[in-house]
Amino acid sequence: MRGVLGLSSSLTTLTRKSSVAQPTVRTVTSPLLHRRFYRTPTQTTTRTTVTSSASISSMAASFYPEKARVPPALPAPTTLITKFKIGICQLSVTADKERNIQHARTAIEEAAEKGAKLVLLPEIWNSAYSNDSFPVYAEDIDAGFDASPSTAMLSEIACRLNITLIGGSIPERCGDKLYNTCCVYGPDGKLKAKHRKIHLFDIDIPGKITFKESNTLTAGETPTVVDTEVGRIGIGICYDIRFQELAMLYSARGAQLICYPGAFNMTTGPLHWELLQRARAVDNQLYVATCSPARDVAAGYIAWGHSTLIGPFGEVVATTEHDEAIIISEIDYSQVDLRRTNLPLEKQRRGDLYQLVDVGRLG
Amino acid sequence: MRGVLGLSSSLTTLTRKSSVAQPTVRTVTSPLLHRRFYRTPTQTTTRTTVTSSASISSMAASFYPEKARVPPALPAPTTLITKFKIGICQLSVTADKERNIQHARTAIEEAAEKGAKLVLLPEIWNSAYSNDSFPVYAEDIDAGFDASPSTAMLSEIACRLNITLIGGSIPERCGDKLYNTCCVYGPDGKLKAKHRKIHLFDIDIPGKITFKESNTLTAGETPTVVDTEVGRIGIGICYDIRFQELAMLYSARGAQLICYPGAFNMTTGPLHWELLQRARAVDNQLYVATCSPARDVAAGYIAWGHSTLIGPFGEVVATTEHDEAIIISEIDYSQVDLRRTNLPLEKQRRGDLYQLVDVGRLG
Repeated sequence: MRGVLGLSSSLTTLTRKSSVAQPTVRTVTSPLLHRRFYRTPTQTTTRTTVTSSASISSMAASFYPEKARVPPALPAPTTLITKFKIGICQLSVTADKERNIQHARTAIEEAAEKGAKLVLLPEIWNSAYSNDSFPVYAEDIDAGFDASPSTAMLSEIACRLNITLIGGSIPERCGDKLYNTCCVYGPDGKLKAKHRKIHLFDIDIPGKITFKESNTLTAGETPTVVDTEVGRIGIGICYDIRFQELAMLYSARGAQLICYPGAFNMTTGPLHWELLQRARAVDNQLYVATCSPARDVAAGYIAWGHSTLIGPFGEVVATTEHDEAIIISEIDYSQVDLRRTNLPLEKQRRGDLYQLVDVGRLG
Repeated sequence: MRGVLGLSSSLTTLTRKSSVAQPTVRTVTSPLLHRRFYRTPTQTTTRTTVTSSASISSMAASFYPEKARVPPALPAPTTLITKFKIGICQLSVTADKERNIQHARTAIEEAAEKGAKLVLLPEIWNSAYSNDSFPVYAEDIDAGFDASPSTAMLSEIACRLNITLIGGSIPERCGDKLYNTCCVYGPDGKLKAKHRKIHLFDIDIPGKITFKESNTLTAGETPTVVDTEVGRIGIGICYDIRFQELAMLYSARGAQLICYPGAFNMTTGPLHWELLQRARAVDNQLYVATCSPARDVAAGYIAWGHSTLIGPFGEVVATTEHDEAIIISEIDYSQVDLRRTNLPLEKQRRGDLYQLVDVGRLG
């Protein structure tokens, strides 16, 4: 499939536009809902002709497609920027935190120089990936400044380069707890969102890969969707991608893109990394971007690499192998609209048979 | 990926076991549920140690994984046969219904001779696939006998060969309505289940493929899970596979295998056919089997072919190209158990954040 649809990472030199109109940043709100969403609609409802949209089957109305998401799905937002370049920085990561911070800074600068308005970093880019390392490298993000040199750099450079920055993840210390946390910064350098990995990586494939993040980390409590100048973006971290419900929920909140910093390994990487990304994209008809650390065969945990951008038809738009790389590729939200017109899944779902409930939005 | 994990279809000659112990066939029942499933659990719940299973993270309990499916997921059934051969008959289909019936009969016999205890046929195997043909070829399945020669054959041959037969689909007439219907027969020749395609194929990719089944067909009203001597099987037809909720619902009802007779086309086939199958399998950790008609480039609607069996790790167990073929391959439900132990997704879901409601099981 990659041979047909894919595009190798190429570090083409692109002129960065230095000023971009900035739409008002909006926050995703949680509209109050009626609480009777779960009622089974009468199966014998008379079929009615839908007049609101020609693309809806005349039979669809009695199937309550709007009830397949509870609360009903929100539309994607209208943003001034609908076509832009994303920079995905597949970074090498070492045991030297200061080097990692400087190295990430350089890569972000390079991506921005090549035109990226949105830059994505890998999971755990400032620290080795191990339960031993997490407490040592963890930073107090809320305290900031000297307590969090990694995020201080992210904030500073997002502002200086006038970009939206999805800062991969770092180990976060908050009180006596540790989290695997992704910070999102706007072009003003302000923290727009903080996503703590919701689904901790606890797996056991004997002889292949066994890991238990929950030995040290605490799971996050909330899904994260953030409105940026480059669209509404859902955030997941690595193992979060295995849970299709999260992507469905993000799509129902109007996300146009889901970013997953992630470090799949040499077992699950070849088996599932691309598959899961393409599945989330095609099922939810949105863009998916992933960013892995580069592979280090000397590391205790060896990352698969293969950071990728997937389009809303499940197609590989851009990808790379396992070495360090910066992918510069284009996201065009008109493709989301096009694919949703081609295959109007949202209008064809059967809310009379199944409903995905976004518990948090019920308020 | 196919190069690594796949296995080309090979018509190896396998000795068919002539007698197999037959467990009691059970029907999936709909337990009554409490109706307060949608309540948001208290976010500050104290973490408790789970003692019921060592594989559950100590943090999982307060995340209410059991609430991620409403009603809670049912376990897979215990069946005497947990390892068996499936025969997937990728048939050529012509305008001659009598020929199609005889041709399907011969293929089913060949599959059974090669050891298949479960045989799967393609979508619309007795008729050309077109809105013009559906009314002409439709049969009154409930009336049976002469009113439905296609299903009369299926019943007779399932009994004679002592197999479970998932009879692809045919156009069904019921009163003044037409359906795209899959019949499932047990080794006693009795009709065990009838699935009417739930999601009609209404798509519009200009210049590529435009089709509107709803011009002639009516959509089915219920998901279908059937207990057979070879396990609990969910049924979907073609476009049904695009709706991840249906597969999630089947998995929550305890299905070990989902069979999708389907006729993807020359546009959506290469883009999505294998991707969707692998996604359903890996996300729900069960087997997925698909069966397409063979490709006929002279037909009005050209099928992609590529019938496939996918394992519960999303791996291609067996597949074929677009010509006529009978795939004989093995299903081993211990692989389902293994993969669910490796990646205990069911115990890691966040019922405090999202819930998939099976409306029909709420009763």
